[in-house]
Amino acid sequence: MASLELISSAKSFGGHQQRYRHASDVLNCSMNVSVFVPPQAEQDTPLPVVYWLSGLTCTDENFVTKAGAARVAAELGLIVVAPDTSPRGDDVADDESYDLGQGAGFYLNATQAPWHSHYRMYDYIVDELPGLINQTFNCLPKAGLAGHSMGGHGALTLGLSNLQKYTSISAFSPIVNPIDCPWGQKAFNAYLGENEAEWELYDACCLLQQQGQFMQLPILIDQGLDDDFYQSQKLTRPFEHVAKQMNYPAIVNYHPGYDHSYFFIASFIESHLRFHHKYLLEQR
Amino acid sequence: MASLELISSAKSFGGHQQRYRHASDVLNCSMNVSVFVPPQAEQDTPLPVVYWLSGLTCTDENFVTKAGAARVAAELGLIVVAPDTSPRGDDVADDESYDLGQGAGFYLNATQAPWHSHYRMYDYIVDELPGLINQTFNCLPKAGLAGHSMGGHGALTLGLSNLQKYTSISAFSPIVNPIDCPWGQKAFNAYLGENEAEWELYDACCLLQQQGQFMQLPILIDQGLDDDFYQSQKLTRPFEHVAKQMNYPAIVNYHPGYDHSYFFIASFIESHLRFHHKYLLEQR
Repeated sequence: MASLELISSAKSFGGHQQRYRHASDVLNCSMNVSVFVPPQAEQDTPLPVVYWLSGLTCTDENFVTKAGAARVAAELGLIVVAPDTSPRGDDVADDESYDLGQGAGFYLNATQAPWHSHYRMYDYIVDELPGLINQTFNCLPKAGLAGHSMGGHGALTLGLSNLQKYTSISAFSPIVNPIDCPWGQKAFNAYLGENEAEWELYDACCLLQQQGQFMQLPILIDQGLDDDFYQSQKLTRPFEHVAKQMNYPAIVNYHPGYDHSYFFIASFIESHLRFHHKYLLEQR
Repeated sequence: MASLELISSAKSFGGHQQRYRHASDVLNCSMNVSVFVPPQAEQDTPLPVVYWLSGLTCTDENFVTKAGAARVAAELGLIVVAPDTSPRGDDVADDESYDLGQGAGFYLNATQAPWHSHYRMYDYIVDELPGLINQTFNCLPKAGLAGHSMGGHGALTLGLSNLQKYTSISAFSPIVNPIDCPWGQKAFNAYLGENEAEWELYDACCLLQQQGQFMQLPILIDQGLDDDFYQSQKLTRPFEHVAKQMNYPAIVNYHPGYDHSYFFIASFIESHLRFHHKYLLEQR
């Protein structure tokens, strides 16, 4: 099996902000992943892990640089894993637009050419990457899953489809109904083709409708009301609507004045990390 | 007089992270400046201000993006002003190297061609920019002055030369003895020529030696011990040495494992903001 190769490490809040490179069999390319390792890693106790899934155009570095998560992660003893948002490389299919191809993997397994030979972010995030993380660090078995925008879509859909692997899901400004918004329709058409039954496997609203009655995975969503994409990409609200229909206890908070940027994420990341930490520790 | 033109604003921790553009008479070009405006600005009380001076290669945006200062600034009601590090523009003299010219103004008034027609960062930071800030926001008269590396040099030298304008000085990994380190010697040769008496006006060690007995401006310095520039650029230590000689009560903290990056700054920025806040509030 491949392993993580450390390419940089900087001390941060008593822990270490690290960056790793590794060969990915699933994505058929080389990948970078950023990991915050808290000071508690020096002890012998398995640590809770949160995976952060970033949005369109991001790499593994945006969250690390901009979200200010290390302070609270260090306090709580959380490992925070920030993967890239797509396969990468010169021989990986791409598109000129920012919302398709590299930087826009949409956390799904593509079935269509030219995408299907690399774009398998679903399998990468759910299986391959946790395998590498768990062989490198001493981790509690289930993880928390968080993300922003396209990454909020990833957190909701991967979490709702893998209830046994995660303790909790949280999202900022998530795409929740990709089968019915411009970003989602463009990406799903390209990656999945015209089979709409398959589209629903990657739609948080559809998944909650189908599976909500069988599970009680805690869900937290924060949404800025001055977010330029809130209306145009139908963020958050359709999911809240389905949750209410299903009588599902998702926590959804709306914040006047906040936009779609990392300034919004930084303002509320502490509450997300504390949310996950609470459920992650129930494994101990 | 020129005024600040708002070019972006994002809600952040209940306040606003803003970016302004303005014509600079002193620098003879157009400048950007980033300002964190805390939620307390909506009240009618004059607010404390901290100026953050960044290091080599930075613009006004590095600190805003990477330092994670907004959370504590919002709590304390601090306005935090992050200027650019040099004059900018196609008709502003520049150099191919990262440590001279644009992005490397060294917070001095250049006397030598081709630099002297734009490179007057000393006057800009001490006089012109505070004029613009004070006409735009309701500010307490004296400010706190903080910075990193070249900006730590700026904070120490501008503060020590203008005791009546500042309440307190703090620095991360500062250049403290530019007349005796490679970065400083290269820049001072270019900007100031061979007149070494003038060099000493911009050297924190020289200034403390000359002025330390007349003043009690509180000074806080933090230095990482895994900083690649700590030895080669003689950061921090010569200043601590002079302070001890002068019996001057500067606080100097050394941190094993930390490097020269913003991961170090983010880890300790809270203590710097609280340090300034304490002295800034004595004006009320």
